[in-house]
Amino acid sequence: MRFLHTADWHVGKNLNGFDLLADQRKVFKQIEKIAHDQKVDAVVIAGDLYDRSVPTEAAVHQLNQELYQLNLVDHLPILAISGNHDSATRLGTGADWFAKESFYLNTTLEAAFHPVTIADTEFFLLPFFGIQAVRNFFGDDKIRDINDAMTRIVQEMQKNFGPEKHHVLVAHFFAAGSKRTADSETTIEVGGLSAVATSTLAPFDYVALGHLHNKNALQEERVKYSGSPMKFSVSEAKQEKGVWLVDTAPFTAKWLPLKPAHDIHLLKGSFAELTTTADDHARDDFYDIELTDHERIPDVLNKLREYYPRIVSLHREHQAQAVEQRASKKRAKESPLDLLTDFYQQTMGTTMSKEQQQWAAQALADVKKED
Amino acid sequence: MRFLHTADWHVGKNLNGFDLLADQRKVFKQIEKIAHDQKVDAVVIAGDLYDRSVPTEAAVHQLNQELYQLNLVDHLPILAISGNHDSATRLGTGADWFAKESFYLNTTLEAAFHPVTIADTEFFLLPFFGIQAVRNFFGDDKIRDINDAMTRIVQEMQKNFGPEKHHVLVAHFFAAGSKRTADSETTIEVGGLSAVATSTLAPFDYVALGHLHNKNALQEERVKYSGSPMKFSVSEAKQEKGVWLVDTAPFTAKWLPLKPAHDIHLLKGSFAELTTTADDHARDDFYDIELTDHERIPDVLNKLREYYPRIVSLHREHQAQAVEQRASKKRAKESPLDLLTDFYQQTMGTTMSKEQQQWAAQALADVKKED
Repeated sequence: MRFLHTADWHVGKNLNGFDLLADQRKVFKQIEKIAHDQKVDAVVIAGDLYDRSVPTEAAVHQLNQELYQLNLVDHLPILAISGNHDSATRLGTGADWFAKESFYLNTTLEAAFHPVTIADTEFFLLPFFGIQAVRNFFGDDKIRDINDAMTRIVQEMQKNFGPEKHHVLVAHFFAAGSKRTADSETTIEVGGLSAVATSTLAPFDYVALGHLHNKNALQEERVKYSGSPMKFSVSEAKQEKGVWLVDTAPFTAKWLPLKPAHDIHLLKGSFAELTTTADDHARDDFYDIELTDHERIPDVLNKLREYYPRIVSLHREHQAQAVEQRASKKRAKESPLDLLTDFYQQTMGTTMSKEQQQWAAQALADVKKED
Repeated sequence: MRFLHTADWHVGKNLNGFDLLADQRKVFKQIEKIAHDQKVDAVVIAGDLYDRSVPTEAAVHQLNQELYQLNLVDHLPILAISGNHDSATRLGTGADWFAKESFYLNTTLEAAFHPVTIADTEFFLLPFFGIQAVRNFFGDDKIRDINDAMTRIVQEMQKNFGPEKHHVLVAHFFAAGSKRTADSETTIEVGGLSAVATSTLAPFDYVALGHLHNKNALQEERVKYSGSPMKFSVSEAKQEKGVWLVDTAPFTAKWLPLKPAHDIHLLKGSFAELTTTADDHARDDFYDIELTDHERIPDVLNKLREYYPRIVSLHREHQAQAVEQRASKKRAKESPLDLLTDFYQQTMGTTMSKEQQQWAAQALADVKKED
């Protein structure tokens, strides 16, 4: 069989205040066309269908329309899970009815162990989950982190593997080896306990992941992120977006790029350079601009917006802002306890007592445990 | 055929801070049992399935479970519309899939003119609507009020009447002749332009209404409110709750009462009386209490809560509060312009100028037009 692997649609997302619904609609149309032209047998959407747990009515309407088009008009089976941005309960409403039309939407851990079979392949649909939910499900408090959790989950899934079938896992988490991007995801620590080792996923013929927006976050033959279908932040400006076209006999994954309705560009130059070269740049695209002027230009953002109406961020190479920004990049590498200590000092004008430090460390450890 | 007529479930509603989900679940179970025992061919839910446009996850989960039970487990067709408390878009998500399993949920004016046929009867599902939407739909700015709107809507529906069929309208609005209750609905004026005259609805064999929570709000043979399935405010304390069981050949409507999980009672007495008779009253029921004591009793609400844990409101017969409350009851009968004039005077310390009065009158007239 052949399926299309996409994820992280984030329907309803804003890019620094700019509504992306129309762009999202256009990129959906491309995905639909690929599914049609390539005669796929199913479309896999690996979580984060919405950008928020309570999406706007406009976002709800649009996603509903898109799923209606794929499933009830184009008659394509859909295999989907909830991601960390979705509310499992809200997204999952109606799933029992959807399944009768081959739209398989799983938002619960319980249902993840019963695969959906399409032709020669069994799909295990594992929504985004918390560690505590896995502990509760197995009645096992010794599950410490997401690797322990996934080891148990995969073991349990293997019990239900049909012997003559291929096995695909659809999931939404941070897998080890991935290159992290600052804006798109918030994980507390780099690497370590919060990432799933890809070796844990070895029993599957293919793992269709969502969560990270960059398809190059992981370089493995059979464990892949599709990434988001369009750029959702400046940090994604240089990424190529697209979908995987996966064939099962034998397993091959082919990358098919998607064209952005409006691209995101990184520009660097003086005010004079940027304004004189403006005609070379698509007016309605999105721009991250780094100004190289030394002198301060009053109201520069509004002046630049006459040439580039959709500036999503503006930095100055040679001013205090630039310094601050570098500091904030350094910030991202500090530990949560350091950040908290610093915040306390700045807010209270005094350092934390030894007891307070212990409380803070314990609270952070508890949070990490729950995560 | 035979159908059950219910409405105004308001799943997720709170009664002055008390969560009603568990009670709502119990009353749903009674409705399900009636549907089963009476072998109905369909269940009609005439709007306000949720209490809010963005219900809590718990409410979403519960309503989804209930509809799943009725439709996919009990295999009962459902005929439902959105009410003024529902978000048409949010509630309507998945409706295209639901319809394939005979769960007909209509949340759009456009779809109201195409009836759903079950056995000998055509059901026209008309969701709650705004006048402007009707003007837009018919391209007719001369539609002034809800009566004009309903006249046009009914004319249009009649064009699609099957000649050999019975015709039922399912709708959610304020129909003329109804007794209004202060807490449950907010309509700007009593009677007049905001109510639909029942004569407009004459072409239908039966009109299954939602909106008003009291089944006695209208006394007509074939135009009926089912009311809410349980009491949702103190003003509903003396109402009997239930559902209509409607047969089509010939058309008859039989009232079947529902038992509240926890009733709402109006109690009046002195602190001494109320505390000594507390054992006569079900501890977990809801109470509206009017205290008759003349002297002020410190912390009286908390003291009474030891006997009646679920007091939803407390008044004093002989104190300032009581006077204020009577004033506020009178208030409800004043016109919007009088209220505004009064508010301006109290806030600004001076009366409105003639010009300001004209502006205010015009603004209120505009609002009424839009409504």
